Amino acid sequence: MADFQSIIDDIHQQIIAQKNYGEVAGYIPELSDIDPEKFGVSLITVNGVCYQAGDSQDLFSLQSIVKVLLLSMAYTRLGGRLWQRVGVEPSGTPFNSLGTLEYDQGIPRNPFSNAGAIVVCDVLLDLYENPRQALLDMVRRLADDDTIQYDPAVAASEKAEGYRNVALANFVRSLGNIHNDVDAVLALYFDCCSIAINTEQLCRLFLVFANNGQTLDEHYQLLNVSQTKRMNAIMLTCGFYDEAGDFAYQVGLPGKSGVGGGIVAVLPGHFSIAVWSPRLNEKGNSFRGLQFLEQFTTKTQLSIF
Amino acid sequence: MADFQSIIDDIHQQIIAQKNYGEVAGYIPELSDIDPEKFGVSLITVNGVCYQAGDSQDLFSLQSIVKVLLLSMAYTRLGGRLWQRVGVEPSGTPFNSLGTLEYDQGIPRNPFSNAGAIVVCDVLLDLYENPRQALLDMVRRLADDDTIQYDPAVAASEKAEGYRNVALANFVRSLGNIHNDVDAVLALYFDCCSIAINTEQLCRLFLVFANNGQTLDEHYQLLNVSQTKRMNAIMLTCGFYDEAGDFAYQVGLPGKSGVGGGIVAVLPGHFSIAVWSPRLNEKGNSFRGLQFLEQFTTKTQLSIF
Amino acid sequence: MADFQSIIDDIHQQIIAQKNYGEVAGYIPELSDIDPEKFGVSLITVNGVCYQAGDSQDLFSLQSIVKVLLLSMAYTRLGGRLWQRVGVEPSGTPFNSLGTLEYDQGIPRNPFSNAGAIVVCDVLLDLYENPRQALLDMVRRLADDDTIQYDPAVAASEKAEGYRNVALANFVRSLGNIHNDVDAVLALYFDCCSIAINTEQLCRLFLVFANNGQTLDEHYQLLNVSQTKRMNAIMLTCGFYDEAGDFAYQVGLPGKSGVGGGIVAVLPGHFSIAVWSPRLNEKGNSFRGLQFLEQFTTKTQLSIF
Amino acid sequence: MADFQSIIDDIHQQIIAQKNYGEVAGYIPELSDIDPEKFGVSLITVNGVCYQAGDSQDLFSLQSIVKVLLLSMAYTRLGGRLWQRVGVEPSGTPFNSLGTLEYDQGIPRNPFSNAGAIVVCDVLLDLYENPRQALLDMVRRLADDDTIQYDPAVAASEKAEGYRNVALANFVRSLGNIHNDVDAVLALYFDCCSIAINTEQLCRLFLVFANNGQTLDEHYQLLNVSQTKRMNAIMLTCGFYDEAGDFAYQVGLPGKSGVGGGIVAVLPGHFSIAVWSPRLNEKGNSFRGLQFLEQFTTKTQLSIF
Repeated sequence: MADFQSIIDDIHQQIIAQKNYGEVAGYIPELSDIDPEKFGVSLITVNGVCYQAGDSQDLFSLQSIVKVLLLSMAYTRLGGRLWQRVGVEPSGTPFNSLGTLEYDQGIPRNPFSNAGAIVVCDVLLDLYENPRQALLDMVRRLADDDTIQYDPAVAASEKAEGYRNVALANFVRSLGNIHNDVDAVLALYFDCCSIAINTEQLCRLFLVFANNGQTLDEHYQLLNVSQTKRMNAIMLTCGFYDEAGDFAYQVGLPGKSGVGGGIVAVLPGHFSIAVWSPRLNEKGNSFRGLQFLEQFTTKTQLSIF
Repeated sequence: MADFQSIIDDIHQQIIAQKNYGEVAGYIPELSDIDPEKFGVSLITVNGVCYQAGDSQDLFSLQSIVKVLLLSMAYTRLGGRLWQRVGVEPSGTPFNSLGTLEYDQGIPRNPFSNAGAIVVCDVLLDLYENPRQALLDMVRRLADDDTIQYDPAVAASEKAEGYRNVALANFVRSLGNIHNDVDAVLALYFDCCSIAINTEQLCRLFLVFANNGQTLDEHYQLLNVSQTKRMNAIMLTCGFYDEAGDFAYQVGLPGKSGVGGGIVAVLPGHFSIAVWSPRLNEKGNSFRGLQFLEQFTTKTQLSIF
Repeated sequence: MADFQSIIDDIHQQIIAQKNYGEVAGYIPELSDIDPEKFGVSLITVNGVCYQAGDSQDLFSLQSIVKVLLLSMAYTRLGGRLWQRVGVEPSGTPFNSLGTLEYDQGIPRNPFSNAGAIVVCDVLLDLYENPRQALLDMVRRLADDDTIQYDPAVAASEKAEGYRNVALANFVRSLGNIHNDVDAVLALYFDCCSIAINTEQLCRLFLVFANNGQTLDEHYQLLNVSQTKRMNAIMLTCGFYDEAGDFAYQVGLPGKSGVGGGIVAVLPGHFSIAVWSPRLNEKGNSFRGLQFLEQFTTKTQLSIF
Repeated sequence: MADFQSIIDDIHQQIIAQKNYGEVAGYIPELSDIDPEKFGVSLITVNGVCYQAGDSQDLFSLQSIVKVLLLSMAYTRLGGRLWQRVGVEPSGTPFNSLGTLEYDQGIPRNPFSNAGAIVVCDVLLDLYENPRQALLDMVRRLADDDTIQYDPAVAASEKAEGYRNVALANFVRSLGNIHNDVDAVLALYFDCCSIAINTEQLCRLFLVFANNGQTLDEHYQLLNVSQTKRMNAIMLTCGFYDEAGDFAYQVGLPGKSGVGGGIVAVLPGHFSIAVWSPRLNEKGNSFRGLQFLEQFTTKTQLSIF
């Protein structure tokens, strides 16, 4: 492997020297207070070596990145039966679009659209007695860090303004693909999105997807090898909304972004990497996060392709 | 590496023993005459070892698979400027859909939709003096086989019945993203799709995408390493129309299918593999071809994820 | 004028002798209990002569027909400024579709789609201190009948199952075209739809649209002549969802239908006519109601065209 | 009836005194040479009295207005069977949109979209030995004027640049709703659109729709009373593309516009009126034409509503 630390430092400094672009997510009031110039990077190899740069210890909001964890929780229990409720196809539309649902009878195209993740939350309410606690337990175990917490202020902020998600959930309910109380499903969804995390915790959390589904220390098997590969495939094709193709093209790693400004990606068999910078491009993905990852995989020539 | 020959033979026999499903492409009259039970497989490693099974020497029509080659021809000449004319995002719609074009001002979502490939043909007419000959030269060189030919009967058959493609081309022209004579663009497109090939030739042809852009014997560099990775990324996200997500999920390799019943895929750094069976599923991809590749990557656990 | 009573009787009997088709609206539980074979007709001329047949004294649920009254209440106060909030174009889509909203930035195509009527309710909450009471007052005054009431059981039934409308309202809210509390807007909307009425009351209520905006007895001017014409125009082009063109073609009168099975129509300067039969066709319009009106205007050759 | 001449003169002068807006149709080269300030008006009553103002004797291109005549030719022969090939619903989309066709299996929403009129041309090729001549004969007979001609330069101009219409025709062909040679269908369509006419001829031509389907002098019955009403209904709901609702609302008459800048409308039982001014609004309808008609029906309070 390359000398990751110096490559990470070089790119980090080079990007900081350039103008930053984009807006901090404004539709969630709590998120719009963040310092827009924060910029942290962490990388952990499957051998457990960790590299960092910048604001890697600052907490930010996990947001849509949690969709990968919600999906894992449902997938380990249901296996392929899960795909009767949600597809695995890129949608070609923004993350909060209602357009295709009307033609697809309420089956969201993929689990990383908001509609898809909300359906997964509905599934989790049937599968777990206390899915909120089960998710937090899983996150803490995978990240090996018991300090990780939900952020009730962020969740409350989203609940108060989340009209689009209320619309999506009720629309899917009207089409028959949500079975539990819509408010309960949405409460779970907003809570899960609110987890506060830093880049080090985040890449530790996702290392399991680079390590055949297993944690490093504890050898806890979250998903089997085949399931892990399939999770990575869905991240690659659907992880960046209508910018998924571009991310695969520019970066070439399975990954997932959130409107909190975080992006996490993995090179199966090698490492996980997390980047955080709050300014988002037009598609809702971190501007500097994308910049960093593109330069990183271009310089190292490390990608799945 | 695994014992490819016995794995290929096992899966091939097992699939033949099962019921075949789907319809041979009916909209191109010349293609509908093919024996629907044909089934061939070839795999070539980057070390040049070749494995085969079934009807690997029978010719079939390349069809949409040629879109990867057309794109390569344009991309090597134009680089990133090409993306002003065509995107790299999965569309979430069938291969011959006109829907999204209306909102995207004539910029096809990706180069592997029919509209996208037709735009690429328009680009090639500006870049190459004789793009037909240039394509054939490239195909023969990559496959190291001078016997490969266009099939004029197939091309004529498509020209006579290709109303949807005529519609697509004229629609894009009306939106300003085709500059040459529409009939000339379509004639080039139909000709290119008509190339007759067998699975051995096909996987030899695509080995360049598994070998960092270079041919084995001649060390001819079609694309540089970074460009090759990017071609593979586009194949993964867009190579199977509105089944791209499912192919990534089930098979986990960059690849491309054609309505002739062929599918070719690559594991970068390792091998290319081509499968041919004429019956197509609802999405227009070879039913047995998909079955074979899914079982192959599941058994060998060889995928990019 | 023709001998309306014998024409009405003839058509009424003829239709009863034929097989009835369609389903009673099932998505509102309270409505699905109705006797599906009920069939009433009333017609009142601008001279105050009234003709009846069948179940003209049985109460049914006004449902979407109330959208015309809500629109009138907003239009009399705001005039043309109202069209900044809602359009007057037929949408070409079903009554509860979300499709076009996404492209129209939350401005519903017309006030007779559910989304459009919900926006009108939002407008009314700003214009009237107590819009619920104001609507009921207006309805009673126009129909000259103080017994007309809301049906709280129907309203509660819709509130409990109205996921699609909750989706629409929240979607429009997310796009900025609802300003009041979404739940308050929806509560008003569901209440208004629940008014219980019979065909005699209904055609009396709509006579104002046939009589230049004025009531017969009291000479109360709800709308001026020009406004009345415009209301009739909107009824004609938008009153029957994606069957508006067909209704104009078959019947040729401005009108409005509701999923309660009611249809009301007017011939300006001449009469209003109301029909009620609970079985709905695929588009959500009363099967026998449409049949009756088509035969009535064909026989009498009385239409606006 | 009102004093039409002075009302027409007043409105005509008042509009000329105001700023003109909009662009002359640019996509048909021959049309873009026209003097954009031309402005003519003609009205003829069912008693044969004719009123005129401005450039009422200048020829302009009939364009989409011919769709009403093509539809009449098909409807008189086929009756209601015609609606198996084309609908009567407003589409909510621009005149040359392909969007809804994909979901409607090639059945255009209405005969006044380009796709719809092209399908009607396909029907006419089956119904008439020489539909070109039959149309011209009908036009001359209705307008009582043998000097009316096709304009081959306009037709040629459209053929050379009509990519969108070529796309529409081939798209419908691919969906099975065109049976004749696509080029022959389009040639007929372009020719028909090219008829050169003035406002006096135009309102004489459409008087039949105000006069129960009959010509004044000759008492030639083009359509029966019921058919005539239905033609008027389709004009009202579909005659102005995605501005049909607005035209019904503002003007309140059945009518049809063309990108040549002409608009014709009728008040059944009373008169037909034709206006011509080449500058078009964003929806493709004559800016001054709409202005004139709105003011005319507002002042006279003569509308179907």
